[in-house]
This record gives sequence, structure tokens and C-alpha cells, in this order.
Amino acid sequence: MHTPWDNRYAQRTQRMGSSAIRELLKLTEKPDIISFAGGLPAPEVFPVAQFQEACQKVLSDFGAQALQYSTTEGYLPLREQIARHTARYGIEINPDNILITSGSQQALDLLGKVFINPGDHILVESPTYLGALQAWNAYGAEYVTVPMDKSGMNTDALEEALRAGPKFIYVLPNFQNPTGVTLSLKRRHRLIELADQYGVPIIEDDPYGQLRFEGEHLPSVVVLDDRFRGNCRECYHGNVIYLSTFSKTLAPGLRLAWMIAPPEVIRKLVQAKQGADLHTASFNQIVAHEVSRGGFLDEHIKLIRKTYRERRDVMLGAMDRFFPPEVDWTHPEGGLFLWGTLPKYLSSADVLKLSLEQKVAFVPGEPFHPNGGGHNTMRLNFSNATPEKIQEGIRRLGEAIFEVIGAPVHVR
Amino acid sequence: MHTPWDNRYAQRTQRMGSSAIRELLKLTEKPDIISFAGGLPAPEVFPVAQFQEACQKVLSDFGAQALQYSTTEGYLPLREQIARHTARYGIEINPDNILITSGSQQALDLLGKVFINPGDHILVESPTYLGALQAWNAYGAEYVTVPMDKSGMNTDALEEALRAGPKFIYVLPNFQNPTGVTLSLKRRHRLIELADQYGVPIIEDDPYGQLRFEGEHLPSVVVLDDRFRGNCRECYHGNVIYLSTFSKTLAPGLRLAWMIAPPEVIRKLVQAKQGADLHTASFNQIVAHEVSRGGFLDEHIKLIRKTYRERRDVMLGAMDRFFPPEVDWTHPEGGLFLWGTLPKYLSSADVLKLSLEQKVAFVPGEPFHPNGGGHNTMRLNFSNATPEKIQEGIRRLGEAIFEVIGAPVHVR
Repeated sequence: MHTPWDNRYAQRTQRMGSSAIRELLKLTEKPDIISFAGGLPAPEVFPVAQFQEACQKVLSDFGAQALQYSTTEGYLPLREQIARHTARYGIEINPDNILITSGSQQALDLLGKVFINPGDHILVESPTYLGALQAWNAYGAEYVTVPMDKSGMNTDALEEALRAGPKFIYVLPNFQNPTGVTLSLKRRHRLIELADQYGVPIIEDDPYGQLRFEGEHLPSVVVLDDRFRGNCRECYHGNVIYLSTFSKTLAPGLRLAWMIAPPEVIRKLVQAKQGADLHTASFNQIVAHEVSRGGFLDEHIKLIRKTYRERRDVMLGAMDRFFPPEVDWTHPEGGLFLWGTLPKYLSSADVLKLSLEQKVAFVPGEPFHPNGGGHNTMRLNFSNATPEKIQEGIRRLGEAIFEVIGAPVHVR
Repeated sequence: MHTPWDNRYAQRTQRMGSSAIRELLKLTEKPDIISFAGGLPAPEVFPVAQFQEACQKVLSDFGAQALQYSTTEGYLPLREQIARHTARYGIEINPDNILITSGSQQALDLLGKVFINPGDHILVESPTYLGALQAWNAYGAEYVTVPMDKSGMNTDALEEALRAGPKFIYVLPNFQNPTGVTLSLKRRHRLIELADQYGVPIIEDDPYGQLRFEGEHLPSVVVLDDRFRGNCRECYHGNVIYLSTFSKTLAPGLRLAWMIAPPEVIRKLVQAKQGADLHTASFNQIVAHEVSRGGFLDEHIKLIRKTYRERRDVMLGAMDRFFPPEVDWTHPEGGLFLWGTLPKYLSSADVLKLSLEQKVAFVPGEPFHPNGGGHNTMRLNFSNATPEKIQEGIRRLGEAIFEVIGAPVHVR
């Protein structure tokens, strides 16, 4: 139906379109679907009782503050808690380096608003996180891509990409979304070195870093940044903006994340956030602070790791058993996702059509490639479904792949 | 300190600067200041016990859902509740007309993202809401202004402003922020008529509409819009986008608001919101739905009206007593603010400097005027301070004004 608003959209809306994939994935919301499509945490491990206790305490002790407007920067005790937490991983900062955001998606949006002019090139891994592309497309970003392999972003190809003069580098070093792979230590050093040499700063997106259930923790890119110390030991003035979140360790339904940046950049981001939503919900910040206090979060993360490790193992075992030998996949050491690669002559969108008939969903890999490619790839989430459903879902998905391989119409 | 990010800001950040006023108002956060500066609800009437009960129930009954990711559009039962509520005010819509936002500030930001190209002119009242200017400046908006008087936007001046070809009209018809004045019924009709004639759509921002404590409710602009009905009685396809919020009736610390628009526009706004923060906190939406159910919100709003009416009356009484006769002010019939006008030869910024020495704060009126003006005006909030503090604060403010009037240096 025609409305007076129809011919008044801004130019940027042309790049904000809902994708065909997104429409397809609406089907996955039906209850009888086994979905490997989303990036949802396991609801079974949400600390519901701890939230109940925290809500009571926060409303009793700080009711007026928790329900009132608050500062854009975020609740100071929460920022102090985050600073203490990140110090354990070698990221020594102070609360002026931290901005609380309404999920990491808002951090990506604010970074786009503050840094991206239409036509700017952003250097991203290919494939990369879809939410970053969605946030930055609205600001007119173009992309220069660096391919991924099983050690993360291929730093041999990075130098050539840097010659294109990108605004910044966007990297997900730990259990990357969508591939599940981790950037090797050697490549982390090389990334820092090249970024410094070309004077191009880095955005390090690390939602899953704490969810490592195998292998050794690797230092964050921000920790490896030499300019980290500067004059002030506790205040960071370096080359890297670091993002993390409570969505994967506490609960995504709170919409709570944080970014670490030089204080000068935080000030610009605060101005942008004032215009975007004034501040992140006071109540949620104080409740998250209360739930996380006293070592509970550390213990809780152990439970999440155990749960996801089991689910990953079930998925890998089922893939070994039910997938044809032509399919390859990654072996993530943490996080929520793994990445499957079909033979080049197959399309994962074709597989999806068949698997949806069998009530199994996943995300085809093509949209994660901003400059094209990946038609034969697929992202599989292992955190959300129960082990029984993972086993059954992978069995059905294997059948769908066999069927596509067997169908001569798909041979190209 | 220099960081690699310094020379990389987008052009739009030049228009996002933190104002001198904002810096000045940081002083008002000190506990010994009597502040008429913010727009904060009275914390004494936050329904803390009801929130405690609702949090327990929601976490017990819907814990996994409340803590999980959810849809961008918002929690369906909450949208249905809003549709039922607005129907009582003659706004008959269905949930497809509604998008839940992270406060009204996000609604303004999303409208900017979806509709404003750099250089577009937006028609606003002068003075108008500062948060709208802050949101839209980031998208490169310019403004064409229509003056206010004690019946709201002066519709005699509207036609000329419409000839400038604005993208849309932004109006706050009830107890406007910052002036506290209400758009008369006659002018509401004239606004709709002219908007239709010039083919310019309207954004109606109504955060305070339910907080009327004197006089008769006036129909919303969206209700007066003729195209309201169309083919479908329950679905709105008209000329007006309507914004409202839970911040003034339940609690701003939840960051919960909503917008009503044609479904086609909602779809674009949903795409923009996906990139901005994925969705508004699931937990907060379900808790707000639970608190508002069963008529509690209606009863609670009566208490808010009673509280604010008393505070307004105390402020008006104290102004009568302590302000010099040269000062004029509005008599709001609801809401949170009133507007003072000093003689033209005085500057409210000068008064603020003196009143801050006496530990009383307010917001000078100039920044509310996007194209300049209002140097002799001031916004006073009466909802947040207790009656005793209002009485004392206005006494001190009166002294500051007398002092500025008496100081020959300020005579221009």
C-alpha cells in the first residue's frame, strides 16, 4: 500500500536490504526445525536463579538508580569490574577506556557512525561476521578482503590488501564467526606488525575468547600492541579497539557488551551513543554487575565450556559418520560455530532447500563474503541444540548433501 | 595523546560535538546541587515492588526466553498490549504497525538513518527537543524552523516553512520538551491539513501525553489523520509516525519505547535496527509487559500525575513569589517541564553561571533553537526534585536573576 513515506527513504537504505537468506531463515523459527542456523547460546545453562537473586537485591538496594536514566559511558562499577577482568588477560586499562554498549552490534554501529565515510574501504576477513557488514553497509562502507584458512586471516595476503588504504582492519581472532577458526600467534604478531607499518588501526572483535574448551589461550591482538603501555600503565592509547560482550557468557537477552579504546576515541563514541540511545539500560548493567561479582561468572563459564565442548564433539562425530567424504570442515577449539566446505561444484543454498524439507536449517556461507565467493560453504552452530538434536540434525543434513551430490542437475 | 585513530574520524563526527552546555551541566551531577536541568522522572514513584514481583515471575515462567536473543520487531505480547492501549486513545492499529525501540532516542536515530540524506531539511518547532537534533545532526540534517507560542507550533508560519520542501515535520504536541506547551486542537487540524496539502509527512513525538494533570485530553495528530483508516480498520497506512515510551510512565532505566508507522516503514526501520542493536533487551520487554498487565499501569499513572501536579504547582507558586516581574513563563497542563523567558536584554547563560554558584541548575534555552535564538530563555524541570527542594531552588534562582538584572554589565 502506498504511503507518503514511500519516496522519502535515504539513499543509504538501499544498502540495508533484508537478504533472501534472512527471509529463508524465518522458517527456522518454527518449533519443529532443528536449527544450526542462529548463533544462540544454550538456554539450558542460563543462570536463571542467580538472575532472580540479583534482580531482588538490585531493586531493594539500588531501585531508584537502576530504574533511572544514567550516564552514556556506563555504570562505573561495571566498567571497573570489566577492567579488573581484562587485566587478568593482560589488557591493562582503566574505566575511561571502556564504553558499555547495547550488545556488540551497537559497538559495530557506533564504530561505523564515528569512522566510516561513504566509499571508505574496510579490511575484513572473507568470510567475516555478517552483523559487521550489516552495520557498516548503512554508512556506505566498501570492503577489501583477506582470505581465511585454518590458521585464521591469511597474513601473507594482508600486505597487498593494506595497500588499498583501508580505514581499519576488522578481525575476529578467536573461534571466528562464521568459520570457528583461530588466528595463530605468529599471525597475530604479523598482523600487529603490518598494521603498524601501514598505519592502519585494528578492530578486534572477541565475543567468544573465553569459551575456549581445547588448546591454550592466545594473547589478544590488543595485548600484543606495543604502544599499549605509553606513558600511563593503566590507560590504553594504542592501535587496537577491542570488543567483547556478556551475550555469550551471561545472557544475550540483556543486550550488554563493551568496547575498549583510547579515551579520545571513547569520547567520540560516547557522543555517537548519546544520539543513538542515550545509554544502555541501567537496570541491566547493575544486575549484570551483581550476577558477575564474587567469582560466579568464572565458575559459570566453566559450565558453558563443558556444555559446548560436548555439543561440538557430538557434531564432529556425527559429521564423520553421516557426511560424504567430499565435505570438509573446521575443528574449532572454542566458540559456537564450525564451517563446512562442500565440493566446489555444489551450492550450499541447494543443500539448504533440501535440508529444510527435512526440517534442518543452517546458514549458507555466501553472504559472509562481502565481495562474493563461498557458494559451497556453510556455517553450523553447535551451541544451541541439544546433543540428541545435533546427532539427528546432522544425520538428516548428511542425507540432504548426499542427495544434492547425487542429483546430476547440480553438477556444473 | 595522539592515537592512530585521530585522523580517521568520519565527516559526520564534526556535527556530533558535545556542547558547552553539556559540559556545564556535568556540574549538576553533584549531590548538593538542586537541579531543574535534567528530564528525570521522580524516583520516589518508581514501582520497585512491582518490578521485583515481575522479575521473579518472568524468570520463573519465561527464563529461557527472557535471557535469549529475540526478534528485532519486539516481544509480540508487548506490541499487542500497546495496540490495545493506544486503541483507547483512538489509535487503532495492529502489532505490524509497532516497533519496540531502545528508548525514544533510538526511534529518533533510526528515523534519521532511514530517512535523512545529508543536507535534507527537517521542519521543527523552535525551540524543539535537543535529543532529536543530536540524533539527526549525525545524518547531516539541516533545519527549517517554525516558532512556538503558548498554543504550540505557530501554524500561521507553517505554510511558509513547508515551501522550503522539508523531508518531514517533527512535532511534540503535548507538554512539549522544552516549553511545556500543548498544540491546540485547531492547530492540530491545521497541521494535518497543511501536511496533506504539501505532501509532507509528520513525526509526532508524544512521550508525555498520558501525564496530563489539568484540562482535557486532545486527540493525537495521528488520530486526526484522515488516511488513518484506509482499507484496513486495524492497520495504519497514513501520514504520521507516532512515538511514545515507557520512560515517563514506568522507568527510563529500562530503555523501552515504541514507534507506530505504516507496516512498509516498520520493515525499513527493522532493517536499520538489526544493524544498530539487533533487538531491544528481551528481559526488559517481558518484564515491562508483566508490570503493565491487569490495569496496574493506569493506576500508577494516576500517582505520577498527582506527584507532578503538586511539583508543578509548587514551582509556579515559588516563581510567582521569587521571580522579578520582568520574567514570563509557561503554565504546562502536564509533562515535566516549563519554560521561562527573561527580558530580551538578559542572557540565561549569565543567569546559569550565577545560579550554579548558588547550587541551582537549569538548561539555558539557546541550544533548543537549531537555527539560533532563545538566548534569554530557560528550561525548568519540575518532576525530579522534591517540593521542598523546588521551593528552595526557585528562591535561589530568583536571587540570581535579580542579581543579573541589577548588574549593569548585562544591560545591552
